[in-house]
Amino acid sequence: MQNIVEAIKDKYHSQSEIEFQVFFNDHITNDFNILFKSLFSDQKPYFAAAIPGSFYGRLFPSCSLHIAYSCYALQWLSQMPKDMKNKRRIHYDGASIEVWNAYVAQFHKDMEVFLSARAEEIVPGGLMVLALPAIPSEIQYSKIGYRIFTFLESSLIDMVNEGIVEESLVDSFNFPVYFPSTEDMTKVVEKNGCFSIERMELANPQSGIDANSFINHIRAGSEEMFTIHFGSKIADEMFERTLEKIEEISAWMEDEYCKTTRQLFLVLKSKINL
Amino acid sequence: MQNIVEAIKDKYHSQSEIEFQVFFNDHITNDFNILFKSLFSDQKPYFAAAIPGSFYGRLFPSCSLHIAYSCYALQWLSQMPKDMKNKRRIHYDGASIEVWNAYVAQFHKDMEVFLSARAEEIVPGGLMVLALPAIPSEIQYSKIGYRIFTFLESSLIDMVNEGIVEESLVDSFNFPVYFPSTEDMTKVVEKNGCFSIERMELANPQSGIDANSFINHIRAGSEEMFTIHFGSKIADEMFERTLEKIEEISAWMEDEYCKTTRQLFLVLKSKINL
Repeated sequence: MQNIVEAIKDKYHSQSEIEFQVFFNDHITNDFNILFKSLFSDQKPYFAAAIPGSFYGRLFPSCSLHIAYSCYALQWLSQMPKDMKNKRRIHYDGASIEVWNAYVAQFHKDMEVFLSARAEEIVPGGLMVLALPAIPSEIQYSKIGYRIFTFLESSLIDMVNEGIVEESLVDSFNFPVYFPSTEDMTKVVEKNGCFSIERMELANPQSGIDANSFINHIRAGSEEMFTIHFGSKIADEMFERTLEKIEEISAWMEDEYCKTTRQLFLVLKSKINL
Repeated sequence: MQNIVEAIKDKYHSQSEIEFQVFFNDHITNDFNILFKSLFSDQKPYFAAAIPGSFYGRLFPSCSLHIAYSCYALQWLSQMPKDMKNKRRIHYDGASIEVWNAYVAQFHKDMEVFLSARAEEIVPGGLMVLALPAIPSEIQYSKIGYRIFTFLESSLIDMVNEGIVEESLVDSFNFPVYFPSTEDMTKVVEKNGCFSIERMELANPQSGIDANSFINHIRAGSEEMFTIHFGSKIADEMFERTLEKIEEISAWMEDEYCKTTRQLFLVLKSKINL
């Protein structure tokens, strides 16, 4: 947010007195106390507020935002595609095209809700900047980068085989994420019709991150979901066991991950005359 | 907040489409997670946000609020009057006039900061509604209602005598609250000059509350301060011991509390031409 604030100040440098109000949104169950203690204690160049709630619905009054920014959040679907419930689906290996299509449909449905809600909230001509994991359009769905979760799953299966975890518990877990391609994203934005696409870039997110940091990164973003379903003891052990497969994961990251995962960067502009 | 929203909807009934955004403010150290889970889960007739930070300073952009409401918060001073630090001051029994004057000065200083900050944030013509504990103007400072804390202090002293608490720990504790009179409040508002007083009422807060509920009420509002200073074990025991003096407290409530404590209700309007 500080970067965005600085950029706007730079652009309108004649108006040194611009005030900024920044709203941080996350799920109601997020630990906002920690956010507040770490982020809000220092003097910030903006007035800060928190908005608890799902962004798959209205969060703000009409025409009250000038810029919206979402980073690595839109890959989370609002829920599992309906017929996927109670079918284990941590990754896509061996998934049928029907399963895949159910994910695609859910993503399109969620994005329509997201874009329509933001279109009401953002002033005409306002911007929305999105960054999220994505896939190159040429690759097959079964090859996409979040096959990282196959490693987590195999740790769970090991624990099933050792009698530590019930197999049914693993079977009833699922992971509602979807990485779109640029074609996917273009389609949902154009169908929605409220925003023009000002910029769309597909970057390679490789930044020399090692397998260990990568697993910890995945853990930071997904542990809570595993903990809610399996309890913290099993979730913890699953991640610890996955860290033991570090060489295998390193090899996979070099061979496959960098070819199959991208970062989608998107700037949308709210249309003035709808 | 729901009452305020309903009142505004009633007044502007022709405009059924008014949207409301409500900002809940409290200290950064408040447990916002519990607030969010209890308040934000239900469907509310407004968009809700949280603003962590002290209201003795700016919290919002200029001219961004139409109505501000503060309930039972302004009796908390921003800090102890300077020369009171490290002098036990849980209540006013036997306090000298110098001590008392230091509290009065601190209250005036805090209110000036509070009113100036809100004057920037509230639109011209906007309202500020305040409710806080107060005292009738005719009574002496040593008689005021928060002598309830003498009961808490006597529990602490008992624990000192039994060797459970260090006396120096009790001596270094203080309680930065001040109950103003209507004269106090009128003086700070007029000196500040940004708001006109639209209504000021001094109500008797007696509502048939019993001594037990009263102590629990005091506990809800002040326990954290005791816990931070004494630790949760001592704070807990202090309140438990105070509950054992329930008959004495009941008698005090009937004889004194109702004569010495009031509820100040105040409606201020932001002046249009400053």
